[in-house]
Amino acid sequence: MKVEVLRIGHRPGRDPRLTTHLALTARAFGAKAIHIQPPDSTLQSSIEGVVKRFGGDFSVKGVGNWKPIVKSWEGTSIHLTMYGEDLDDVIGDIPKTQPILLIVGGPKVPSEVYQLATRNVAVTHQPHSEVAALAITLDRLLGTPRVEKLPGASVQVLPCPRGKKVVELSG
Amino acid sequence: MKVEVLRIGHRPGRDPRLTTHLALTARAFGAKAIHIQPPDSTLQSSIEGVVKRFGGDFSVKGVGNWKPIVKSWEGTSIHLTMYGEDLDDVIGDIPKTQPILLIVGGPKVPSEVYQLATRNVAVTHQPHSEVAALAITLDRLLGTPRVEKLPGASVQVLPCPRGKKVVELSG
Repeated sequence: MKVEVLRIGHRPGRDPRLTTHLALTARAFGAKAIHIQPPDSTLQSSIEGVVKRFGGDFSVKGVGNWKPIVKSWEGTSIHLTMYGEDLDDVIGDIPKTQPILLIVGGPKVPSEVYQLATRNVAVTHQPHSEVAALAITLDRLLGTPRVEKLPGASVQVLPCPRGKKVVELSG
Repeated sequence: MKVEVLRIGHRPGRDPRLTTHLALTARAFGAKAIHIQPPDSTLQSSIEGVVKRFGGDFSVKGVGNWKPIVKSWEGTSIHLTMYGEDLDDVIGDIPKTQPILLIVGGPKVPSEVYQLATRNVAVTHQPHSEVAALAITLDRLLGTPRVEKLPGASVQVLPCPRGKKVVELSG
């Protein structure tokens, strides 16, 4: 199942860490790409550095306008919002054979998003974090990955009861 | 099962949003308190405002020194770190009758944390976000809450396919 993420309303300079966490969560939980609106080349380089080091197939794309992505998405678009339907009620309806776009807004998401998305979905109906909502949704769609060596990785972290066990990998 | 969260190494002023997201995630996914080290009165007021509005039993406590909390914790302390053991391997070992303290550090967590915690636990062995790790761990321990009216809430969000359905509650 191909899953990508669209982050609407990123504020370069103001919240680099939050969008960084969002992008890394997308990658760690199995999404294949994040589209960031508006583009942020500094953040993009930072995430690409993580991909280069830890491996796997994940891309960061800067976008000026989010609407064409949602409108032309060939599959299901899911807007994550505390106002939507319960994730557990919706998850069974999502076709698993088509690409999924998870749309993450923020407090000031344009109202059109609610209309253009295939579904509006809530992970709890309490205020919390788009990072948490994304992690839980990807967990439900793809399962949370266990330890694995990703293609192209130059480093791998292994499970360890105390301390750190990091293996440097060669080609 | 009583679960509380300890956030070590918060940086007041630098990352208010990230710790805000962490605190709100702790609350939304069923933890009863977050201890924030060092204290941050602005952040504390902000979270207390959410609790007042959305209800439920959740407290924010500022702490100067994190060690006494971990050392005197009567139950299991779990340090969330990408270097730990797989969550899925550990979750069955956690006694459900004792209080659980979830410890969340950050990139520069003191090495003593690894020694003092009962367990070091990883939610994937990839770099991502303490917010995502906390959400997944609380989901595994307590389940993700569905729509509910929390005690003392003055407002409740109801599931809605498109748009927003918010109910103002009286006394």
